[in-house]
Amino acid sequence: MSEDLVLFGPNSHVEVRVDPKPAHVADNDPALQQVVDWFQKLPGLQQHFGSILRQSIDEVLDGQRTGRYDIDLAEKTEKTYLGTKVEIITRAAFDLPRGANMDYAVAGHDVDSKFSMRGSWSIPTEAMGHMCLLTSANDRKRLFNVGLIRITPEVLNKGLNKDQKTTITAAARSRVVWLAQDATLPENLLLTLPDPLVRTIITSGSGQKRINQLLRSVQGRIIERNTAVTVARQADGLKRCRDARPQLAREGIVVLGHQNQSPIVARALGLPIPVKGTFLSVRLTPADALTSNRPTVTLPEGTYAVAQPDDPITPAPTIHY
Amino acid sequence: MSEDLVLFGPNSHVEVRVDPKPAHVADNDPALQQVVDWFQKLPGLQQHFGSILRQSIDEVLDGQRTGRYDIDLAEKTEKTYLGTKVEIITRAAFDLPRGANMDYAVAGHDVDSKFSMRGSWSIPTEAMGHMCLLTSANDRKRLFNVGLIRITPEVLNKGLNKDQKTTITAAARSRVVWLAQDATLPENLLLTLPDPLVRTIITSGSGQKRINQLLRSVQGRIIERNTAVTVARQADGLKRCRDARPQLAREGIVVLGHQNQSPIVARALGLPIPVKGTFLSVRLTPADALTSNRPTVTLPEGTYAVAQPDDPITPAPTIHY
Repeated sequence: MSEDLVLFGPNSHVEVRVDPKPAHVADNDPALQQVVDWFQKLPGLQQHFGSILRQSIDEVLDGQRTGRYDIDLAEKTEKTYLGTKVEIITRAAFDLPRGANMDYAVAGHDVDSKFSMRGSWSIPTEAMGHMCLLTSANDRKRLFNVGLIRITPEVLNKGLNKDQKTTITAAARSRVVWLAQDATLPENLLLTLPDPLVRTIITSGSGQKRINQLLRSVQGRIIERNTAVTVARQADGLKRCRDARPQLAREGIVVLGHQNQSPIVARALGLPIPVKGTFLSVRLTPADALTSNRPTVTLPEGTYAVAQPDDPITPAPTIHY
Repeated sequence: MSEDLVLFGPNSHVEVRVDPKPAHVADNDPALQQVVDWFQKLPGLQQHFGSILRQSIDEVLDGQRTGRYDIDLAEKTEKTYLGTKVEIITRAAFDLPRGANMDYAVAGHDVDSKFSMRGSWSIPTEAMGHMCLLTSANDRKRLFNVGLIRITPEVLNKGLNKDQKTTITAAARSRVVWLAQDATLPENLLLTLPDPLVRTIITSGSGQKRINQLLRSVQGRIIERNTAVTVARQADGLKRCRDARPQLAREGIVVLGHQNQSPIVARALGLPIPVKGTFLSVRLTPADALTSNRPTVTLPEGTYAVAQPDDPITPAPTIHY
């Protein structure tokens, strides 16, 4: 087991970083400023966009049906469609009406949605003179960008492709008003794991066995619903996580959820605290004999700490989940 | 109200028609015959494919977020992606492994998935010599087709498009082994309604008000979950249907579900019987004074029949939902 174990500390639960710098907008474009202001007034704007991009990628991957977790390996058709999915989810998330000529009306102005995985946005000729909401996401690097730009002849590279589209010049990138720049995309857990470990998990047998192996192999980290359904290849991936508890208890592993004693145990042990629809597995060891000063939690059956790989395997304490 | 009312009888709940004819396969292609046999051994094959195509269209429409119900109005990107969605859902539905070179391995043979809304399948050069699972769906006509064909030079039209694809000749269609031919696609209720009626429903205000209007305007027909979430523009479209009950009771309308007295009432009145996740609304009228011999149901508060438009509005009886 230990060769498949990836143990992460409490600091592995990275929060979305909020850029403290104010957006810079060209003084001579009040409409662009109004659109920027409209977005920037929304609380938690970057987190919101991070969730939108995460959700878009996850829906196109369709992990529950396909078991896929790497958007780079999706088909070309799916990568193209990802931009449409981002457009749809963004519209729904901010309840944006359609613009007269572009995808959205924001603060009364037409704004077109443009997504590019690599930040090389394809701009159609129809967008000339209009504003574009530029989004990009790099799932492997866990980064995303959101910006606004007014499309003018100067910002575009010369020459159109066969779809009558072109790209924004490198120089014009300084004219983008960034709402999020290199912000942290919510984690795609499976993509962060070494390939052989993922293979061990997804080749462990039934959906339940794959979930058991996930919880055994990836401890101390939040398991999101999408990770669970991708591994389980079924809608009730979360139920499989709950059902793993009695099976993993023999190996000393507890599977914390969001209810009852779970958050208390997680907090006491300095672990990330699962919210609804997420889980965190961790192997525990009786703390009585320990000389190191790891954080401990005291339960009716005794005092426990997070087990290190060389601690002997003992049955997990009973937790009121 | 009456000008928006579309009342359908019990026979409007059309079942998928199963073609009784045996499939005809060229004698000299045993592999094709094995693939045909593999599919035809599955119980409820046509219904299964009907659900797959319905689900694929509904997911691309993403009615919960977009309010859309007409795939013909989707973007080109989405129509292209629909083929990928059909491929994915078909693979998951039949638990098909990937083929060596094509999308699926069926009975040990490579089979490629090809979807076309209009049945003019685009065949890539790589498919030459392989079998294709051809699917098509016409949501407006409520028809779908599923067939298998071996791709040979004779079945293809000459000349490739820019994507190195071509189509199957009209003559070669007789060589398709149909697993479903002009079978009935599960209903897209909103698409069957007159445009002005849909407009009345979706412009009635909040999600709850839109659902109320749907249940008021479309009586005697099964409301599927996807219709409810498309009208409500929210995930809890079904809850909105339940919450409509006290509001519509004043207008004499009951909203039958799948539990308790609902199926009994539906059966007694000769209406379609809602299954889990579906609803059926109907206005009732006290049957005591009626001279016609409509079906009736006797409840603690009296005997009721389905109201006709000219029956006076009386409060609905209490139903244990």
